[in-house]
Amino acid sequence: MSILESTVNNIDSLDKTSIEQAKKRLDRLIKPQGSLGKMEDICMQLAGIHKNKHFDTSKKVVIAFGADHGVYEEGVAPDPQNITYMQLPNFTKGICGVGVISKFVGADVIAVDIGVNCDHELEGVLNYKIRKGTSNMAKGPAMTIEEAIRSLEIGIEMAEDSIKKGYNLIGIGEMGICNTTPSSAIISVIDNCDPEDVTGIGAGLKKERVKFKADTIRKSIELNKPNPEDAIDILSKVGGFEIGGMAGVILGCSANRIPVVLDGFISYAAALLAYKINPKTREYMIASHSSAETGTQRALNILNLEPVLNMGMRLGEGSGAALAFNIIEASNYTYENMATFDEVDMGR
Amino acid sequence: MSILESTVNNIDSLDKTSIEQAKKRLDRLIKPQGSLGKMEDICMQLAGIHKNKHFDTSKKVVIAFGADHGVYEEGVAPDPQNITYMQLPNFTKGICGVGVISKFVGADVIAVDIGVNCDHELEGVLNYKIRKGTSNMAKGPAMTIEEAIRSLEIGIEMAEDSIKKGYNLIGIGEMGICNTTPSSAIISVIDNCDPEDVTGIGAGLKKERVKFKADTIRKSIELNKPNPEDAIDILSKVGGFEIGGMAGVILGCSANRIPVVLDGFISYAAALLAYKINPKTREYMIASHSSAETGTQRALNILNLEPVLNMGMRLGEGSGAALAFNIIEASNYTYENMATFDEVDMGR
Repeated sequence: MSILESTVNNIDSLDKTSIEQAKKRLDRLIKPQGSLGKMEDICMQLAGIHKNKHFDTSKKVVIAFGADHGVYEEGVAPDPQNITYMQLPNFTKGICGVGVISKFVGADVIAVDIGVNCDHELEGVLNYKIRKGTSNMAKGPAMTIEEAIRSLEIGIEMAEDSIKKGYNLIGIGEMGICNTTPSSAIISVIDNCDPEDVTGIGAGLKKERVKFKADTIRKSIELNKPNPEDAIDILSKVGGFEIGGMAGVILGCSANRIPVVLDGFISYAAALLAYKINPKTREYMIASHSSAETGTQRALNILNLEPVLNMGMRLGEGSGAALAFNIIEASNYTYENMATFDEVDMGR
Repeated sequence: MSILESTVNNIDSLDKTSIEQAKKRLDRLIKPQGSLGKMEDICMQLAGIHKNKHFDTSKKVVIAFGADHGVYEEGVAPDPQNITYMQLPNFTKGICGVGVISKFVGADVIAVDIGVNCDHELEGVLNYKIRKGTSNMAKGPAMTIEEAIRSLEIGIEMAEDSIKKGYNLIGIGEMGICNTTPSSAIISVIDNCDPEDVTGIGAGLKKERVKFKADTIRKSIELNKPNPEDAIDILSKVGGFEIGGMAGVILGCSANRIPVVLDGFISYAAALLAYKINPKTREYMIASHSSAETGTQRALNILNLEPVLNMGMRLGEGSGAALAFNIIEASNYTYENMATFDEVDMGR
């Protein structure tokens, strides 16, 4: 059995007994029942994930993948492609968005080159380059089926390495100029909607170019005909290496019962792929923030996830996931440290 | 001139030059312009408040007021009234919602008895009791005009004391069994809508009782006829002492150019009163979370505020404000510590 198959087979549902035990404790805390909202939902979810009403959320990491995209040549992004290789090393230096926010919340960042268009090694970045960027999906499949599986397996490996090192809260991030294009393509295929409904400005495309971007996505889907029920087929035809890597981390976390924190738009595409591969992965996901990108709500609706942050962010990198680590830790801390009605006389 | 008058007269608009300077720095950080969303908005607002493109957000406090309500006797809340005096001392002990979350984010909590229905001193709580709860607004005005002004001035005093002690990020909180009832009344008067549109379950009222609660509010408004354009008239007729105290903190923070972080539903009522007294107060407000209580959106629409957190919380106390401190500090930290395009060669 392949790494991918055995990982997917290892994903179980959350533990109901632990969820009930957590709920029992939450209902004894000195507050009206349910009044902490999603803080309570997060604690129940984490209990179910860890099969234990107590759980640790202190060792945090963002695993971020960098890759480039053949479809860039169509003119779907405003920035030069070399921003990908220039920015990725900044992830672990703590000077870009995800780096600084991770520092603030006490999280580490792992950056992985899974397909950046450059020949040199990137400082502080793990080299798992599959190829120097995907092929142009507007002219044919973005990658082979083997490459799609390889990208997922790299993600699984990254997740498992981190879990072995003791990380118990894992976020996903990315860097890849024009990667809202394959993300919108994936979401459009899985949601069975027109690309225009899920295509936005990305990192700052001029509004009049968004229609062209959606047309390019539509053309790519019509040409490649991805099977909406086959995530690996979708990933190979209109996806990206970093999206596969992120989906792999979700699979790896789910198989190893570790919560995985989504970031923004690109991560929704990865989450949808993981969900298509095994719907139980959804139970391990925590949505961090609601991306400002068009199509966010459609993607989150399929996943039935509601983010905790509403920041209008559209940076990517894993910045939103890192910011939400704080809220998740605060939830756990509150759950553990609030008094219960048994401890305090509240006349109940 | 009274303390209230001089405070209200001292409220100026934000400093445009500092906002522009902050925007200039934000636009040079290594990210697409505006991609950090509300993190950027917060930094520009804080610069405008402090008249300086650098500002400190490290010394944080939640000022929380406890009070009781005469309208309780109508049967608008499911909990015994003595929960107010039993819970308020827990605020500073760090064992209730706001106490624990404040500990997590490194904030202090100041609890103020501004009108709790008890004769004994409350441990760790400042005694500024105006009276042992308001009168029943369903039978007459909740308080006199003098008491309304007194509640506002206590709030101003609490804000100024804290600012003198060096606090630079102030949240507001409350404790008062049945205080969603006067809050809904205030919001209904200012929004000029039917009470049913802004009345919810509060701390857990049975759904079939919500209509009765709205009817009680409607009756109180019809009886007392508060002038929708006169915040002090509204506060005195259908308000509460803790709501006046919170509105006073907003006035005090605004006059002293310190940001004030709203909490949930009760704080929206206080914010609307402060806004009616002086619309410039809005520029000093940061909305923390979107309360789960009915009427939240209407209140926030008038204030034109969008919370950063979407947690479905309905605990009050200041718990949401404390949780948002973290996001505000993260925003400031990110703004100060991200590299700029001048420092890093990004090919721009």
